[in-house]
Amino acid sequence: MINGEKLVENPIRWAMVGGGRESQIGYIHRSAAQRDNNFHLVAGAFDVDPKKGKDFGVKLHVAAERCYPDYKTMLVEEAKREEGIQAVSIATPNGTHYEICKAVLNAGLHVVCEKPLCFTTKQAEELANLAKMKNRVVGITYGYAGYQVIEQARQMIANGDLGEIRIINMQFAHGFHSEAVETENPSTKWRVDPNIVGPSYVLADLGTHPFFLSEVLLPKLKIKKLLCTRQSFVKSRAPLEDNAYTLMEYDNGAIGTVWSCAVNAGSMHEQKIRVIGSKASIEWWDEHPNQLRYEIQGKPVQILERGMDYLYQEALVDDRISGGHPEGLFEAWSNLYTRFAMAMGACDRGETLNDIWFPGIEAGVEGVRWVENCVRSADNGAEWVEYQ
Amino acid sequence: MINGEKLVENPIRWAMVGGGRESQIGYIHRSAAQRDNNFHLVAGAFDVDPKKGKDFGVKLHVAAERCYPDYKTMLVEEAKREEGIQAVSIATPNGTHYEICKAVLNAGLHVVCEKPLCFTTKQAEELANLAKMKNRVVGITYGYAGYQVIEQARQMIANGDLGEIRIINMQFAHGFHSEAVETENPSTKWRVDPNIVGPSYVLADLGTHPFFLSEVLLPKLKIKKLLCTRQSFVKSRAPLEDNAYTLMEYDNGAIGTVWSCAVNAGSMHEQKIRVIGSKASIEWWDEHPNQLRYEIQGKPVQILERGMDYLYQEALVDDRISGGHPEGLFEAWSNLYTRFAMAMGACDRGETLNDIWFPGIEAGVEGVRWVENCVRSADNGAEWVEYQ
Amino acid sequence: MINGEKLVENPIRWAMVGGGRESQIGYIHRSAAQRDNNFHLVAGAFDVDPKKGKDFGVKLHVAAERCYPDYKTMLVEEAKREEGIQAVSIATPNGTHYEICKAVLNAGLHVVCEKPLCFTTKQAEELANLAKMKNRVVGITYGYAGYQVIEQARQMIANGDLGEIRIINMQFAHGFHSEAVETENPSTKWRVDPNIVGPSYVLADLGTHPFFLSEVLLPKLKIKKLLCTRQSFVKSRAPLEDNAYTLMEYDNGAIGTVWSCAVNAGSMHEQKIRVIGSKASIEWWDEHPNQLRYEIQGKPVQILERGMDYLYQEALVDDRISGGHPEGLFEAWSNLYTRFAMAMGACDRGETLNDIWFPGIEAGVEGVRWVENCVRSADNGAEWVEYQ
Amino acid sequence: MINGEKLVENPIRWAMVGGGRESQIGYIHRSAAQRDNNFHLVAGAFDVDPKKGKDFGVKLHVAAERCYPDYKTMLVEEAKREEGIQAVSIATPNGTHYEICKAVLNAGLHVVCEKPLCFTTKQAEELANLAKMKNRVVGITYGYAGYQVIEQARQMIANGDLGEIRIINMQFAHGFHSEAVETENPSTKWRVDPNIVGPSYVLADLGTHPFFLSEVLLPKLKIKKLLCTRQSFVKSRAPLEDNAYTLMEYDNGAIGTVWSCAVNAGSMHEQKIRVIGSKASIEWWDEHPNQLRYEIQGKPVQILERGMDYLYQEALVDDRISGGHPEGLFEAWSNLYTRFAMAMGACDRGETLNDIWFPGIEAGVEGVRWVENCVRSADNGAEWVEYQ
Ligand SMILES: NC(=O)c1ccc[n+]([C@@H]2O[C@H](COP(=O)([O-])OP(=O)(O)OC[C@H]3O[C@@H](n4cnc5c(N)ncnc54)[C@H](O)[C@@H]3O)[C@@H](O)[C@H]2O)c1
Ligand SMILES: NC(=O)c1ccc[n+]([C@@H]2O[C@H](COP(=O)([O-])OP(=O)(O)OC[C@H]3O[C@@H](n4cnc5c(N)ncnc54)[C@H](O)[C@@H]3O)[C@@H](O)[C@H]2O)c1
Ligand SMILES: NC(=O)c1ccc[n+]([C@@H]2O[C@H](COP(=O)([O-])OP(=O)(O)OC[C@H]3O[C@@H](n4cnc5c(N)ncnc54)[C@H](O)[C@@H]3O)[C@@H](O)[C@H]2O)c1
Ligand SMILES: NC(=O)c1ccc[n+]([C@@H]2O[C@H](COP(=O)([O-])OP(=O)(O)OC[C@H]3O[C@@H](n4cnc5c(N)ncnc54)[C@H](O)[C@@H]3O)[C@@H](O)[C@H]2O)c1
Repeated sequence: MINGEKLVENPIRWAMVGGGRESQIGYIHRSAAQRDNNFHLVAGAFDVDPKKGKDFGVKLHVAAERCYPDYKTMLVEEAKREEGIQAVSIATPNGTHYEICKAVLNAGLHVVCEKPLCFTTKQAEELANLAKMKNRVVGITYGYAGYQVIEQARQMIANGDLGEIRIINMQFAHGFHSEAVETENPSTKWRVDPNIVGPSYVLADLGTHPFFLSEVLLPKLKIKKLLCTRQSFVKSRAPLEDNAYTLMEYDNGAIGTVWSCAVNAGSMHEQKIRVIGSKASIEWWDEHPNQLRYEIQGKPVQILERGMDYLYQEALVDDRISGGHPEGLFEAWSNLYTRFAMAMGACDRGETLNDIWFPGIEAGVEGVRWVENCVRSADNGAEWVEYQ
Repeated sequence: MINGEKLVENPIRWAMVGGGRESQIGYIHRSAAQRDNNFHLVAGAFDVDPKKGKDFGVKLHVAAERCYPDYKTMLVEEAKREEGIQAVSIATPNGTHYEICKAVLNAGLHVVCEKPLCFTTKQAEELANLAKMKNRVVGITYGYAGYQVIEQARQMIANGDLGEIRIINMQFAHGFHSEAVETENPSTKWRVDPNIVGPSYVLADLGTHPFFLSEVLLPKLKIKKLLCTRQSFVKSRAPLEDNAYTLMEYDNGAIGTVWSCAVNAGSMHEQKIRVIGSKASIEWWDEHPNQLRYEIQGKPVQILERGMDYLYQEALVDDRISGGHPEGLFEAWSNLYTRFAMAMGACDRGETLNDIWFPGIEAGVEGVRWVENCVRSADNGAEWVEYQ
Repeated sequence: MINGEKLVENPIRWAMVGGGRESQIGYIHRSAAQRDNNFHLVAGAFDVDPKKGKDFGVKLHVAAERCYPDYKTMLVEEAKREEGIQAVSIATPNGTHYEICKAVLNAGLHVVCEKPLCFTTKQAEELANLAKMKNRVVGITYGYAGYQVIEQARQMIANGDLGEIRIINMQFAHGFHSEAVETENPSTKWRVDPNIVGPSYVLADLGTHPFFLSEVLLPKLKIKKLLCTRQSFVKSRAPLEDNAYTLMEYDNGAIGTVWSCAVNAGSMHEQKIRVIGSKASIEWWDEHPNQLRYEIQGKPVQILERGMDYLYQEALVDDRISGGHPEGLFEAWSNLYTRFAMAMGACDRGETLNDIWFPGIEAGVEGVRWVENCVRSADNGAEWVEYQ
Repeated sequence: MINGEKLVENPIRWAMVGGGRESQIGYIHRSAAQRDNNFHLVAGAFDVDPKKGKDFGVKLHVAAERCYPDYKTMLVEEAKREEGIQAVSIATPNGTHYEICKAVLNAGLHVVCEKPLCFTTKQAEELANLAKMKNRVVGITYGYAGYQVIEQARQMIANGDLGEIRIINMQFAHGFHSEAVETENPSTKWRVDPNIVGPSYVLADLGTHPFFLSEVLLPKLKIKKLLCTRQSFVKSRAPLEDNAYTLMEYDNGAIGTVWSCAVNAGSMHEQKIRVIGSKASIEWWDEHPNQLRYEIQGKPVQILERGMDYLYQEALVDDRISGGHPEGLFEAWSNLYTRFAMAMGACDRGETLNDIWFPGIEAGVEGVRWVENCVRSADNGAEWVEYQ
């Protein structure tokens, strides 16, 4: 159980690029990183508008002189400091991730990067190589993976509780963009602009989340081929899709599906993953993340609850309060940021950690690869394509 | 509200073929048909084993001499009676439907036939033509369509409450056949024998149910092309599938999916249909059939309940008890059998009924057509096929 | 599993008093009684208005001459027939039950009587004695008791699955009478008229239902003392209550509560019973009657489903269709009417049935007794009273 | 929306008493207080064992010399520092709250105190007077009150959306103490020891939580009289109760109930509050705290979701992430700690804040008063007592 005791000897000196005042995702980065003193926010280039960025940074208790007009200046200036930053989180719109990530790695710093890492597998692999060369940690914020019952699910599958895995159904299907809200909402506007998000909207923005969960739960599964059909129900979004279905054939004969959707009218998130085995199934829904359905064929459905002794030990270590009390997305992110910090510390000490996993650079690469394959299929008449 | 008052002047003299003592579906036919005196069971060939069939029929209060060894004898003998049977329900394994249905129509009788009507569109159309020529009513027992909130959903869509329809997600995905239970269970054995069920298992057995619901809810939608991938997770079932995904493109640009599955371990039925429009979605789950989720984008989700005044008038007429009291599958079937009786009565009087709908011969044809197209795609490498 | 085979050699010749065309509860009596040919409706005094009653009876396929202007005439006339009625169901407003029930018993017929049987324990015991003397069966339509998972709960408790029983929480709390709807609605009007319903509204109308369930589940428990507070939130209903809480102390130290309410705004039924033992709890909700929650302390909650093999054998015998298919209130009532028929048949043959239970005359007496004690407490400043 | 921008100019210098390494509730205090830099943990007497307390404090990044052996030493030593502590949170077992709270106030510091504040209304009022005299802020951690949909409920009631309030049903009924786990578990042991928890177990430990919610939702309601019956189902706990029911009559004729229970086998928390008005009801369940059921009589039930525009503005200000993402108990506590900080800052500046509310000293007093009245009734034969 986490109780605030230090897991990292000294808080990592940390900066953010993006995640400004009105941004959607900036706060959860800060909240997760600084929880339990794993990271300490000391610098930033928080906004595309330098003035707003500085004003905001100061309100975050960052020294004014370390609130930089842009990430390039930040990297240059921080490099001059004795106690300069050690890690940078990137929470800007998608189109900038590649170049910022590259620059940060080249500056010899650890990175936490928002998904998608970039737009092409080629770029992604380039970043992966760079990270390796520079021996730096890259964390990708597939935040839902930090929930404890996901760990429980992972252990159950590894331990054979479900039997042989046959089917994985995934979805992330909200309704908030049922209409062309992008005309009003800046955080949506760039999401449907191919210049900023590249080749895909919902596949990359939504589908990659449950897809990463499937990688966590089923680390050995390999996609053999897939097929994707995508639509732009709000016409002005074409060529970017606001709905997509992906079918996947895995190398062991299992089957997977992903429904990625931003026009699922009236729905909140509806991010779900269901893994079906020969003996039992499990199902998880991100809107009620403390529960896991466990359905053994021929037995009553069971509702597993976070924090309970009957779970696998690995699913209990990240608890911050006893069962029954709902933990939420902030704890899930904190769990990941804690692991990022531990991995960065170990890396700096020249050690490797074997007992933790987190969405690292490979997760970033695989997410980009999956989107790329989906788009290739979709743009080729929604035909099956070999997974590359 | 239904209160038992006669809707049909005299109960229709009715017989069954199949639906014997241990059969799965025989009782609900009898219960639904005889509810409210719409039909009166006076004859039958209830079992493949004549002796068991007779013994059983007598226990159903059928006169011993009208418990026939087989349907052919029944049709011959009943034709000789002044007060012979007027309608026959067919509840035998799939492979016999075509010939029995044809024989019954040729005998000039009305039919209620289990799904699937037969195995090929060609056969199905032949039966449709025969029914037309003989001017007889054919009802198909897509029983779930008889629920009142399905009618509510139908009215909501027709009235534009959902806006323009974009997506229809369907599934019927139970887990009862996760293992090769057919070795023990006779009602499952024939379901996975291609000699008896023809070209498909779960598509025909399960998928056609929500598919018919989509026809009820969206009568104008036409499939342009579809793609189906199917699997035999229990290997011995090949070439018959125990899992299948179907993707559909409709002529107006809407998209549909059907998940048909008998290996969804731990699940009861999980028959669901979700219709997503530009303004709102509705979702229905057959295990809790008195409720309908109504999700307007930007508003709180609403749970509509059977029997409540806020529903469309058309969704209230078949109520048998006030809201809050759960009606179940027996009422849904009774609602259909009542309409079958009314249509048969009207047909006999040379009238047509415009104010009721029910799964008739076209539903039978369309179900067969859909399975045929799915199988064609699946057997052609799971490629897209033009819908024929 | 019930499949329609005769359980009673010949359908019992049966009549109804009340349950007319617009009545709330008449149809379910007819539907339940005639299901599976256990009873055959051959006579009736269906309405307080003789003309309407006759017109209605004819539409129910009752011979015109056996549609009587009132129950007294019916009893007299039917007694003259060779094949006169054998049993009568009483579905009239509460104030008439006592006298009709008495008359029917005195006529030597079996009775099915709506709850409450009458208004005082004294009257109730008089009827019980009369039934005994006349050796006639009395069934009381506590219909919810007919659900199969109630039987499952009963077996679980009897088998000690819950440990020692500590707490029983009950409620029946709908919202339909949040306003003074009685000014418009005739079925509500009499319910709040003390001349017709006697000393209580919701305690008798609603609370007795889950109270009877508690008698079914815990046949040995005896109330030692109770306390009841009641309110008339719609002022014009005073002295009749539209809300009441009852606390009970049982002789073994267990505790019970009943919330009876007709002003639970926005709620459908919310009839629930939760039984808490030292090891586990079970909870049942009448709006989703095919499920039973089973909560073992320290284990994941389990959802038990009707029709599944893991249930006790006794909970499977009344199934009419396999699990996953929702049965509803009509099946629950049919299960009770079937037992009424079997008991009547046995009684006529001079036999006793030991292997079935049903809400009989004692259930009627105990319901009246409970209401009487509640009212006594409530009218005595909501003080504790010894249970008499 | 909260994004981390400073709400308090400088973090308040803050210490804890209790909340040591294995304590249940220590971490959430630290996490909530330090979120967003409102408080900064600089000192503490974290454990009854000084050595463990110091070791732990250091691991929390507290300077070794400010990890004190006990709270008295801490108050003395910190008073000598220029930059000494400004506020203290008390998270020790109940029996110590009174004396620690008094000492902290006497030291001129702000307090956050765990519930129950103390054991008697007299003591509580003494503390209230002291706080007033010393002009210090006291916050009480009724943490559930910090959820945003509780604010929504509050606004709905204030705005008359429910009509006139009639009934408030409350419960906090977990099952974790169904057996005598106190023999093994130290955090449970003291909870059932009257020397440490005073006159009550579950009423004080559990019941006060939803009771405080009722005060938040219905600030004007006054209890006129109440009745409480309590039991010790685990015998060794007597005279302390592990189950209790409280009935309340409010001065306006409304009725309330509270079920406090630690032997609700198999249940997690089951903390719920349902407020029933003449037009509509609302219901909230702490295990799924982002949702609020809104049930208007005669309309479909609505599920309101945190973070959605259709909520009252007051229910949106504390959001930290957009709707659909689950917030949890940590955010609820952070919301309260933020208000504590703002109130403390204002108090120090000689200002009063009118636009925020939080559980303050009155909440502490009222909680103690309620328990005292409940116990008085329970110990007086579970009779009605005038509320004092
Ligand atoms: N992991 C998740 O669950 C999740 C959720 C939401 C968003 N995201 C990702 O986070 C990223 C940001 O999304 P958002 O919704 O917060 O976007 P947003 O539009 O709400 O905010 C973007 C922020 O970045 C700033 N910014 C833009 N360009 C910048 C630059 N060159 N330098 C510095 N700052 C710059 C903007 O000023 C703004 O503050 C995206 O990549 C998105 O895909 C991830
Ligand atoms: N509409 C639905 O929801 C639904 C549900 C279940 C089954 N069905 C359909 O109902 C049909 C029967 O299915 P089931 O599960 O009841 O099968 P089953 O195997 O349980 O019962 C089949 C019955 O038919 C009898 N029979 C077989 N051949 C016969 C013949 N030539 N003449 C007379 N009787 C014969 C058998 O003796 C047996 O009583 C199938 O077509 C099935 O697809 C439909
Ligand atoms: N068991 C249950 O779950 C349940 C549910 C609803 C009602 N009830 C009970 O059923 C009884 C009837 O309730 P209802 O809601 O159907 O009432 P209702 O007012 O809807 O119908 C009453 C019917 O009885 C007829 N009637 C009245 N007096 C008569 C008389 N003297 N002779 C013949 N017919 C007469 C009326 O014409 C009408 O048709 C009540 O005792 C009620 O408590 C039980
Ligand atoms: N607000 C809530 O929701 C909530 C939830 C749980 C507990 N609580 C309350 O929090 C308090 C603590 O409960 P807990 O469950 O964390 O208890 P616990 O037994 O788990 O922990 C108590 C801690 O206090 C320390 N302690 C004991 N006496 C001390 C002293 N004199 N000086 C310094 N430290 C001392 C112990 O060493 C231990 O670390 C109780 O009053 C309890 O009612 C409130």
